[in-house]
Amino acid sequence: MSEAVRPLKDASAALIDELCAIVGEKHVLIDAADMAGYLIDWTRQFSGDAIAVVRPSRTDEVSRIVKLCGSAGVCIVPQGGNTGLAGGGIPSSGTPSIVLSLSRMNTIRHFDEAGRTVVAEAGVVLEALQAYVDERELFFPLMFGAKGSCSIGGTLATNAGGSNVVRYGNTRELCLGLEAVLPDGSVFNGLTGLRKDNTGYDLKDLLIGSEGTLGIITAAVFRLFPKPLTRVTAFLSMTSVDAAVQALNRIQDRTGQSVEAFEYVPAPVLGALEKAFPELRSPLEGPVETGVLLEVGSSRVSDAKADDTGSTHLATELLLVLEEMMESGDLLDAAIATSEQQRSDLWRMRESVLEAILEYGASYHFDISLPLANISWFLQEMDEMAAALGFETLTIGHLGDGNLHYALVCSDRERWQTLALGRAKEKAFELLRRLNGSFSAEHGIGQSKLDVMRALKEPAQLDAMRAIKRALDPEGIMNPGRLVPLAE
Amino acid sequence: MSEAVRPLKDASAALIDELCAIVGEKHVLIDAADMAGYLIDWTRQFSGDAIAVVRPSRTDEVSRIVKLCGSAGVCIVPQGGNTGLAGGGIPSSGTPSIVLSLSRMNTIRHFDEAGRTVVAEAGVVLEALQAYVDERELFFPLMFGAKGSCSIGGTLATNAGGSNVVRYGNTRELCLGLEAVLPDGSVFNGLTGLRKDNTGYDLKDLLIGSEGTLGIITAAVFRLFPKPLTRVTAFLSMTSVDAAVQALNRIQDRTGQSVEAFEYVPAPVLGALEKAFPELRSPLEGPVETGVLLEVGSSRVSDAKADDTGSTHLATELLLVLEEMMESGDLLDAAIATSEQQRSDLWRMRESVLEAILEYGASYHFDISLPLANISWFLQEMDEMAAALGFETLTIGHLGDGNLHYALVCSDRERWQTLALGRAKEKAFELLRRLNGSFSAEHGIGQSKLDVMRALKEPAQLDAMRAIKRALDPEGIMNPGRLVPLAE
Repeated sequence: MSEAVRPLKDASAALIDELCAIVGEKHVLIDAADMAGYLIDWTRQFSGDAIAVVRPSRTDEVSRIVKLCGSAGVCIVPQGGNTGLAGGGIPSSGTPSIVLSLSRMNTIRHFDEAGRTVVAEAGVVLEALQAYVDERELFFPLMFGAKGSCSIGGTLATNAGGSNVVRYGNTRELCLGLEAVLPDGSVFNGLTGLRKDNTGYDLKDLLIGSEGTLGIITAAVFRLFPKPLTRVTAFLSMTSVDAAVQALNRIQDRTGQSVEAFEYVPAPVLGALEKAFPELRSPLEGPVETGVLLEVGSSRVSDAKADDTGSTHLATELLLVLEEMMESGDLLDAAIATSEQQRSDLWRMRESVLEAILEYGASYHFDISLPLANISWFLQEMDEMAAALGFETLTIGHLGDGNLHYALVCSDRERWQTLALGRAKEKAFELLRRLNGSFSAEHGIGQSKLDVMRALKEPAQLDAMRAIKRALDPEGIMNPGRLVPLAE
Repeated sequence: MSEAVRPLKDASAALIDELCAIVGEKHVLIDAADMAGYLIDWTRQFSGDAIAVVRPSRTDEVSRIVKLCGSAGVCIVPQGGNTGLAGGGIPSSGTPSIVLSLSRMNTIRHFDEAGRTVVAEAGVVLEALQAYVDERELFFPLMFGAKGSCSIGGTLATNAGGSNVVRYGNTRELCLGLEAVLPDGSVFNGLTGLRKDNTGYDLKDLLIGSEGTLGIITAAVFRLFPKPLTRVTAFLSMTSVDAAVQALNRIQDRTGQSVEAFEYVPAPVLGALEKAFPELRSPLEGPVETGVLLEVGSSRVSDAKADDTGSTHLATELLLVLEEMMESGDLLDAAIATSEQQRSDLWRMRESVLEAILEYGASYHFDISLPLANISWFLQEMDEMAAALGFETLTIGHLGDGNLHYALVCSDRERWQTLALGRAKEKAFELLRRLNGSFSAEHGIGQSKLDVMRALKEPAQLDAMRAIKRALDPEGIMNPGRLVPLAE
């Protein structure tokens, strides 16, 4: 080690002492073994190093840490449950950084029964929040695979989506306000939970989805919803994606916007599923064309009641629409879950798709979205292009939101190495641009898509983002090198 | 006129020539008579002057105008239907400015049936957009008094609310994307209408509600909804505001979140109404305590069907809840509209309240919001305080959103002059702060509430707002002196 590096070493030691003074020695991890889990993401694609992992338990501690790091010129990488898919919560190697873990800030601070809101700290695990709300006979909807380990701070930082956005919106729409520590260490107190508050720029929504680059979200107030008393879950085989989109609209009308999930599970994915998990079969006997996992739900007492036919009012309502669609020929076949077991089997099928694709072979996954009217066009052009380049494709998606998880795959992992993935990505992004699609729908940019961001995001928007980043974080200490590509 | 002013005069003349070259001479108004209507607001509280009123018809013209004004150091005040209540669209006197009227940009560019979205230019009048959508068997919800003359650009710039926010959200929640000209003249193209698009900072929501201080919204893409096939409108007399809030939640649960409006119309307001418009009486025979105008709506075919009782399924559903509430004693009396005429009478009553208050005497109107649980507390303390200072009070509000239009009034206009309005405002804002309320719920800040903004907005948020304003509009040409109070 050269002499020149020594002062940094000393500076680090001094910083660590000061961090310990703020949060207590126990909560400043500096041993490699203790830090390891915080320095690599769960997909094992992204790893880095840090001076320390710091675990504050209160907002004022976060504020003091931010001020301290600001004056020391040390970067801060906020981290929640470390379930991100884009490397946004993992520090870079070689940039003096701390990981600021919000895991100890896991208190649910307040429940407002009249206003139907809840205030939770950033480190609260999504599933724990849902259980808390459920006990109080209300509903917090956000739903995706990582719900048992992701923290709500991370869902906010990435504006996480999932499978019931079609009814309840992304994390942004569920959040009524934030508490956050800004890059200068000041605290933004926005936890009033008001439905209407037009007093200046929308800092809440600027922070949501900013992936820790504009500040650290320490708590949030969320909207809660009536608890669905009854759900109907079905698996449909439609003639085409366009027919499925039309069906979605018709079901929305007929059930009074009760659609909670409208998931695309086409034939090739069912094949991959059956190969990986023989017990996870389509509930339909014949071959499936465009498969859709549909769920409708309602909080109405009358919807949960059995009618003359023995099924619930909501199920009868849905059946009527399905029958119409069968008569018109758009719907080929349908299976309705008649027990909680059948419902959970359908969801297990949906939730096992990623694993089935990973089992199937090598893969690259796009997280994209399109206007509903352009989806079938995209799929057709992409599938042709991919086939021409020697790829197979496996696509699932949250069809109701136009969000596809489109995977280029190859069952032969060796042959995968020879395929022109770069060319396929280029063509895909070109096609997306042409069809008004987005290259990043719900997983965020992090470090994994910075190059795409630089290449595809509109220059006027990139410039505005950079100006905002410089304005709020002039020293560039908040999660640098993530989300916002540097100007060239 | 001094010699020193001449160059400005010449500069203005040159600027006007260039503006004419962009939009055509006909659309650059410079005569005082032609400009008059653009330089005073409809409440006649705010007026100013301008070099010219410029009326572009295309986004590229707006971009060229912004660049031109930027290089000439002339400020730009965007204006839509000029129906604002806070003076945000009226230029200051003495600041070289143009009014940029969006009224000619009134094309509905695109309707997406599958995705249920519509792209409209900023100058489209809200009611015209609603009619367009209605013809296509869908629904665009935004509803308030000015709908016949306000333009959608203005609703976006102020994040307008209204009376069905309780179901559909504010303008922000209805908007999926924007096209806007930024202060440097660059164009932000965000009209893809995607439900999920996590590619960087949320510039859309930053521009919405920024009152023209960060750019000029030229077009927007909006979400559309299933058209309600049936509505039930009722007027309720509840025992208290808290009972009304509880009733709201119960009705939401029981009708599957079908509440479209939940408006607070208490006894004193009914009195003022009857005094001003004797034909606009409460539909209830006895005295009303906490009056609520309730509307539920549904797009379900089955809800619109008559059941055994002869009323619609939705009405029967609502009746059941009302009966329960009557048994529990929370609901004193209720009248359900049984014809479109009765429904429109109820709404006319609600919509005539402002006029009735203005007739009643001198008044000052707060546009505030509170957590639902704190509303009765606020009303009690405010009413007592106001009475102690010699004011009467008349309050209506969008109770479902916690949004009150609270008016201090005095039937004797001469005595009004002697009352301590400043003291009452101070006390009101102090109380609001204590109860987690907002001093500006839906009308915006404009120029009318800049002093309140400076006094009450959290310094950390004011600093962030100022930093963003400087970053995106370094020359300060976009609607200066509005929304963002200058640092002291």
